Parts: sequence; structure tokens; C-alpha cells
Amino acid sequence: MQGLMMDQPLLVKSIVEFADRVNPDVEIVSFTADNPRHRYTYKDAFKRARQLANVFAGWGLERGDRIATLAWNDYRHFEAYYGISCSGFVAHTINPRLFPEQVAYIINHAEDQYVFVDPMFMPIVEGVAGHCPGVRGWVVLTSAEHMPETSLDNVHCYETLLEGESTEFDWPELDERDACALCYTSGTTGNPKGVLYSHRSTLLHAFASVWPDVMGLSSSETVLPIVPMFHVNAWGTPYACPMVGAKLVFPGPKMGDGAELTKLINEEKITMSAGVPTVWLNLLAHLRESGETIESLKRIIVGGAACPLSVMEEFDSHGVETRVGWGMTEMSPLGSVNAPTPEVAEMSGEDWDKQRLKAGRPVFGVEMKITDDEGKELPWDGEAFGSLKVRGPWICSGYFKLDAGDAHADEGWFETGDVATIDPHGYMAITDRTKDVIKSGGEWISSIDVENAAVGHPKVAEAAVIGRYHPKWSERPLLVVVRDKGGEDLTPEEILGFLEGKIAKWWIPDAVEFVDELPHGATGKIQKVELREVFKDFAFPEE
Amino acid sequence: MQGLMMDQPLLVKSIVEFADRVNPDVEIVSFTADNPRHRYTYKDAFKRARQLANVFAGWGLERGDRIATLAWNDYRHFEAYYGISCSGFVAHTINPRLFPEQVAYIINHAEDQYVFVDPMFMPIVEGVAGHCPGVRGWVVLTSAEHMPETSLDNVHCYETLLEGESTEFDWPELDERDACALCYTSGTTGNPKGVLYSHRSTLLHAFASVWPDVMGLSSSETVLPIVPMFHVNAWGTPYACPMVGAKLVFPGPKMGDGAELTKLINEEKITMSAGVPTVWLNLLAHLRESGETIESLKRIIVGGAACPLSVMEEFDSHGVETRVGWGMTEMSPLGSVNAPTPEVAEMSGEDWDKQRLKAGRPVFGVEMKITDDEGKELPWDGEAFGSLKVRGPWICSGYFKLDAGDAHADEGWFETGDVATIDPHGYMAITDRTKDVIKSGGEWISSIDVENAAVGHPKVAEAAVIGRYHPKWSERPLLVVVRDKGGEDLTPEEILGFLEGKIAKWWIPDAVEFVDELPHGATGKIQKVELREVFKDFAFPEE
Repeated sequence: MQGLMMDQPLLVKSIVEFADRVNPDVEIVSFTADNPRHRYTYKDAFKRARQLANVFAGWGLERGDRIATLAWNDYRHFEAYYGISCSGFVAHTINPRLFPEQVAYIINHAEDQYVFVDPMFMPIVEGVAGHCPGVRGWVVLTSAEHMPETSLDNVHCYETLLEGESTEFDWPELDERDACALCYTSGTTGNPKGVLYSHRSTLLHAFASVWPDVMGLSSSETVLPIVPMFHVNAWGTPYACPMVGAKLVFPGPKMGDGAELTKLINEEKITMSAGVPTVWLNLLAHLRESGETIESLKRIIVGGAACPLSVMEEFDSHGVETRVGWGMTEMSPLGSVNAPTPEVAEMSGEDWDKQRLKAGRPVFGVEMKITDDEGKELPWDGEAFGSLKVRGPWICSGYFKLDAGDAHADEGWFETGDVATIDPHGYMAITDRTKDVIKSGGEWISSIDVENAAVGHPKVAEAAVIGRYHPKWSERPLLVVVRDKGGEDLTPEEILGFLEGKIAKWWIPDAVEFVDELPHGATGKIQKVELREVFKDFAFPEE
Repeated sequence: MQGLMMDQPLLVKSIVEFADRVNPDVEIVSFTADNPRHRYTYKDAFKRARQLANVFAGWGLERGDRIATLAWNDYRHFEAYYGISCSGFVAHTINPRLFPEQVAYIINHAEDQYVFVDPMFMPIVEGVAGHCPGVRGWVVLTSAEHMPETSLDNVHCYETLLEGESTEFDWPELDERDACALCYTSGTTGNPKGVLYSHRSTLLHAFASVWPDVMGLSSSETVLPIVPMFHVNAWGTPYACPMVGAKLVFPGPKMGDGAELTKLINEEKITMSAGVPTVWLNLLAHLRESGETIESLKRIIVGGAACPLSVMEEFDSHGVETRVGWGMTEMSPLGSVNAPTPEVAEMSGEDWDKQRLKAGRPVFGVEMKITDDEGKELPWDGEAFGSLKVRGPWICSGYFKLDAGDAHADEGWFETGDVATIDPHGYMAITDRTKDVIKSGGEWISSIDVENAAVGHPKVAEAAVIGRYHPKWSERPLLVVVRDKGGEDLTPEEILGFLEGKIAKWWIPDAVEFVDELPHGATGKIQKVELREVFKDFAFPEE
């Protein structure tokens, strides 16, 4: 027997309709190349999103067509999000930091009909346009007076397109399971894979992200998403903020500039922000150098990579609460957030330091489990670690134009590729990537834990642990170390002795190799595949 | 084109599954008749909900069957909520304050198979059982040693039923649109009408209720729902709290007792509570008399009736934020909450007093509009008032076993029966009930505004305004006044003069009648239907 409740679908357009009425005058502030501090309101933004919809209506597009963006966080990108998704098309955000071949690959794979481009990314599209015959036009996100010179055909000026279009548009009635956005995730191997978000998943994710223990969004907050709109929809903030009437401040291309961020925080009275550790390192470095403060900022979410404890402690001194968040492109992205429960809030010293670095508790809507090699579930005791699997209404069931099986080794669950522990308080901590974990005598060793312990040695600049063949244990850990300046006398014995008591005895590596540098990828991560290749012929000394 | 996101239905059982893993040790504290302060955890509660499901499995029930409860807020009622809904049955909460004939009517109308009863409500069911031949059994929510003597057949003891049942149960896979709960709303006329909530509507409502600008729920909160679980599911708190890991404290039958509430707030460190104005008047009276304080309490939601400003001001002095909430049984119930936006937070004096009394801003998920007699939408200017209509995924589309048309005079919108203004900040304020509004020369006069102005006169104890026939204006307001002690000399001229400048000139009543008392209903509301009957032959003096 069905309930007797209205059958209202969860659609992105309902955010427009709601904010237009309830939060029309709340501000959106943006940095852009052509207008250093653009200000307007949600009402203005959605008027222009409807103008954009009228532009699309004249282009002969079909429901579900992909329209791409290659842009920083600003108001035009925000308008494109809504104009595209609410019209029944799919907003495909492209990461401009990808290699040009990857940009071309995903434009072609997605079959993008049009690409919206920030003026500063014109060189990228000029480079790839010849390889993307399916693109019917390139729209430069600027005004006529700031249009760059370009060798491309089929180039439109965004502001010129909007000019004269009606600000009225009847959004189509869509199914809540219809796709609204697409974001490619680039693994370390193979081609990027597209995650296709639905209206339903986007709204449910936004509902949860507002919660006090997640982002804590409300009409009293001014939110600065430093995480890019081309990367998992800026963690959903462009959807969640208009739902609650939070003021949005978009940093445009100034995302990594500590001085500009400080200025923006203070002038716009930012209360909440979200970004990757690098951004916060830049901001803190600027604050240290300048002596400036950031009084209005109350809370930041740090994700995308492990957050150093020192960053948290420095933010503590500024009166800013640091919350670690964890997620994936495949998860919209929110999976867990580290907000303290009453028991955790009472911790102190090392316990607290350790606890606050964890990836946090799963948000309702995200089911988690950790399993061993046989797929058997492991306990939430903070000790056992296994493959982390997740399930929920905003987690992908497959990749665009690929078999569903690619996302699901364990039926109905998404394999994150991470190895994790979950403690009795429900806090998950990533201990490794599945492919980097070391299996010694059938038991797993966390390479991350060993590396973290090793870099604690003052003479170690960087360390990586990889598993190598061992005749008795099948695999044993090999520690690869870059000595720090002045650490030329560091010996294997000294560092192995240093590890004693810090990690389990049987985790202590069987050998240490010194190198001048470790191989790094484009995002700064150590490339273990490459490192394993370097040491492919390594043999542990016989016992 | 559909998105590629997991097709996970929104089900009440997902709250059980989530809280069991993430918040197993969070406490539920209850007052009950047989155990003055019962304490256990979510994990314990859900174990017992599964035991209850095993009991149901032996009863030969069918998917969608209704199982009723007639109980105060406590842990057994909480278990019944989950045990019933997650098993695929419908939890039908009955208001024990209804007249016995109404209780019998709704048990029969709902076709309840079993009724779960608090021991103190046994006299009610003993009175109605003979009129409810469809009920297969009555379950008393107590232990064997506290079982009351009863004349009824087919009586079970709740604890005896659970004894020995397995704590494991595989919840069925349901459709998210399946019904999970049923609550009857009693209008002033006609039979009570059943609102049938779905799993989907219940979860979406809970998602929104957690928000900082709504209830502000998190793992750091300890929540005391003083609003009954038999009245619109205690405003959804039994669902929302386990989703976020908030500690739940159930006051049992002690809901109206100021001294007991104070004790509970202080001993359990309640941070957030929700209830009707009467409850808060009792609590504040006790605090005044005893000199006690309520340090832990940070925030309360007041709904169900207009909140007097004096209540807010007294809570201000206790450091408690008072938020007015508005909703209806038909709305799950949340429609709007009065949390201050930055602009409103800057108000002071009379502006602030007026603003904070409003019903608040609609919660995302609830669309609102106000319309005139012709159904034309009115502006959100804080002045225009019209019929309030709402729409959204947790608003009813019809009543149980009645035509959908009963809920929808305006297609796709639910007619609240209220008359309201909405101001430019998005704050809605109820000015009248549709049936009580006075129409003078085609324009509406808000009876509530006139009444509020009239009771401001020191010699007025109570006032009601009703519309009466007028040959020129079709209707004009008649003010009916109960004089206060010492106000025997109050004249019509004095009170009408007092109203000048306080309300629009053309709203000032054409006549005043004095009475000894006004007719009140069971919940204390003035019965205007009856009052109009008393003055049915009233004629305004000819001009």
C-alpha cells in the first residue's frame, strides 16, 4: 500500500524555484578575469540561467545531451550549472589541469555538444578543438569587450548569447533519476571514467551536506568553496547553498593565492570554506608572513588528501574548526566527515590528535563496510583494516558508457580502492590504497602507517613503503627513503630502530633503500607503481 | 538519459541499519509508568524492534496492515514505530486525548489489526473495544509484573511477547513510496481524516529537519521531544535523531509537568526540545516559582499554536533560543521555521518582536504561495494576505480512503486552510483561518490581527472577531469581548478608540458586544463556528 504523499520529484530546478522565492536577495560574489569582484543575487543568477536555457532552446539540442564547462568557480559557471541541468541537459565539468589528450578524450567520450570555456583556458581548447569534431560550438565565459582573439571557429561570447533573451523559461518536468551532471575521474591507469550524477542523487547529497555535523550550512553562513566546480561540483556547495540561503563567494582563478584568499575571507566575512590541504597551507603561510587574521572564518572542511596535523593546529590558533572530510568523485563526493561526537570531544593529547586526523563518520545515506580478502566483513574496532566498500543513493552504480561491473566487484557495493579501519565511535581512517597494501604471511600491513612513522625521523625528507617478494612471507615491506639535508649519515639500522614501538613489530620493514628522489604524479602523490618498477628486481637479504 | 547512481530506496529501515553501525551506543532515556528512568542505546532499541518484527511474523499479517499505538513518548513506543514500519506495516498513532467515539471511529476506519496501549490508557480501550470488532489483539506496553487487570479478551503483554524472540530479522525490501505511518487529524467538523506517510516522505522530512536553520540536530545534541509521538510523529524527531546520533530523551506521561521537565533537562543535559506553547508556559512557571535554571538547553522549537512573545522573552533570559515552527499533520509536519537570517538578526525593538513571532521561512522541500479569492498569487510583501497553499514531497496528496480532491481545491497544491502573509525576507505569518477571515467590500480583514490588538487593552480578558452581514459591505467585523476583572466600566467607544492607529482604519470593527465567556474547544481554541451561531441574528446598527 502506497502512502498518500505528493509525488514531487527531486529536481535541481526545485532549488531554483525555492531560492528564487525564499532567498532571492542573498548574494553571490565572484572573482572573474573580466570583473575582479562581481556581485549579484540568487534572483539575478537564476534569471540569467533561464536566459541561458532560452539560448539552448534555439540550438536544437536533445534531452540528455552533454554540455561541458572548463572554468573556475564563478557566477557564470554557476549559471551554466543550473541552465544546463534544469533544461534537461547534462552539465559536464572538465578539469582544466588534465593533459590536453585527456581533455580531448573526455570531450569525445562524453559527446559534448558545446563547451563553455573561461578565457584563460582558451589555449587548452585551441589545442584540442581539432581532435573534437563533435563539438558544435565553444562559448567563452566573458563579455564582448573581453573576448579573446582566437583561431577557433564556432566561438560564441557568453554575454552576447544571453543578451536579449527572455528571463522567463518553463523548465521541463524531468524524472528525478535523469542525469544532471557528469564528472570524469582520472585514475592512475587507463582512461578517465565518467560519473553520471542524477537529479535525485544531487538533491539527496545536498540535503545531507547541510547538516550541522557535515558542512553546517544555513542562512547565517557565507561559504567560500575553494574546491573547484570542475571537481565533483565543488563538493555540492553550489546546490546546497541556495537551498538554505547561504551567501556564496566564488574565488575564480585565485584559488591557490593565500593573500587573495585572506582578503576575500575578511572583506566578504566568510564563515565556512572547503578545500584541499594545499590551499590551506598557502593560506596559513600567508597569515604567518603577514600577521593577518581571519576572524570571520569559523569552520573549514579539508578533503582530497590527508590533512597534516600541523594545519589543524595552526587553524586552532586562528579559532577555526578544521573538519576532515572524505569522499570520491564516485560518491558526489561526501562519504564521511570528522565532526566530534561528545565522546571524541572529550579526548585530549595524542588520542585527540589521532582521532581528528581520521576521515570521520559516515554521513547518513552512505553505508560503509570493510572486508578482508574473502569479502568477509571486518569489525569496527579501530584495529582491523580491510577494503572499504560503500553503498547509498548518491554513490555511482557504474561509469558512463562502461559496464556496471567496472564499479562493482562486490555486488551492490562500490569498491573505493581504499583500505581503512573503522573505530567503535564510527570514525573511518584510510590506511592505504588497496593496490599499495602489503600482504605478509596472509596479513595486511598498512604502508601509510609505516611511512607516517618513518617521516617522523628528523633525517628523513620523504619515505615510501612497498611490498616486495619474500620467499617465506610471500611479501615483506621495503622502506625507500629520501634523506633530508644534513641526514647523509642516516643508516638503515638507525631508522629501523626508530620505528620500534611506533608500529607493530612485524610491520617493521625488512630492508631500507636510500634514493635521491621518489617518483611523483601530477597531483604530488608518490607513484608507487613506478617505484615498484624501479625495485622490481629487489631481493631481501637471505636470513 | 538516467544517471548512473545506485538505486537505493529511502526507507525507514535504513535509519536502523545506519544507527546500528554508526551510533550504536548513543542513549535513549525514557520515563515510563513501570520504570521511572529507563536507559538504553539505539543498538538495544533496534534489537528489540527486530524482536517485535519476529512477533509480527507469527501473526499472519499482510504487507500494509495497520498496527496502532495509543501511547506516550517512550522507548517502547519508539520500538513499535520501527518494528511496525520496517516490517512493511503501517504505524498508526492514535491521540489518546480524542473522544472515545473518535478513537473507535479511527481504529475502525484504519482497520487496525492490533493496538499497542500504554497501561494508563487501558480504560480508553476497554471503553472502545466492544465497538472495534476488527481488532485482533491489544498489546499492553509494559512488563508481566506491571500488567494491569483488564476485562478485555485478546490482551498481550509487550515484554512477554518479545521474550525469547530472536534479535535478528531480515527487514523486507520495500518500495520507498510504501506507506509507513498513519496519523489522523481532527478538524472542527466531520470525522477525523487519516494522513498516510510514506517511507520516502518520512526520510526526506527527516533529512530537512536536521538542518541548522530547522532543528539543528547533530551528534552533540540531546533532544527532548515534548511534542507527542501520537501527534505527527513527534515532529519527526524519532527518525531524525538516530540519523545523526543525537541522544533522545522521552518524557513519557510527564510532558506537561514543569518540575519534571526541569529535572529531566538538567539531569540529562537536554540541549534542544520541541513542544507546544502550553508546555513552555508550564516549564517557565515552574522556573519562576522555584528559581531553578536550565543551563544546558540552547534551543526550543515552538509550534502547534501561536507562541506568546512573553514566552520568548522569558526564554531569552534563560539563554534559550526560541524558534517558532509551523506545520500540519498533513505536512509531516514541518512547513516553516523562524530562524533569523542575517538581515532579521539585525532587527531590534518592535520590528524584532513582530518578526520573531512569525511562522518563519519555508524549509526547502516546501513550496508556498498565497492566493486571493480567484486563486491569483499574491506578492511576498508582508502586507498582502491570502489563502496559504503548500506543495512538496512530504505534503499529503489525499486522505486515507477518501477522494484526493478532499485535500486539493487548487490543483497540485494543498490548501492549508490558513490565511497568511509572506514578507520579503520569506517569513510567513498566519493571520487567520480561511473560514474565519472577514470579507468586507471584497477585501479581507484578518480577525487574528484585530483580536491581538484588542487584547492589548488592559481591561480586555479575551476577544474574538467574527464577520457578520452588512448591507453595504457584505460583511463587517463584530468584536466580542470578555471584560477583565475590574474592567466592568469598559465601553465599546473606549475599546474602538484604543484600536485606532493599531490596525488599518477600515479593519476597526463596526460594533462591540460584551459576553461573560467565549466558547472554547478541547484544545483551548476559541470556537468561532459556535460564536457565529450565538450572533447569527446580530444586525449592525443602521447608519
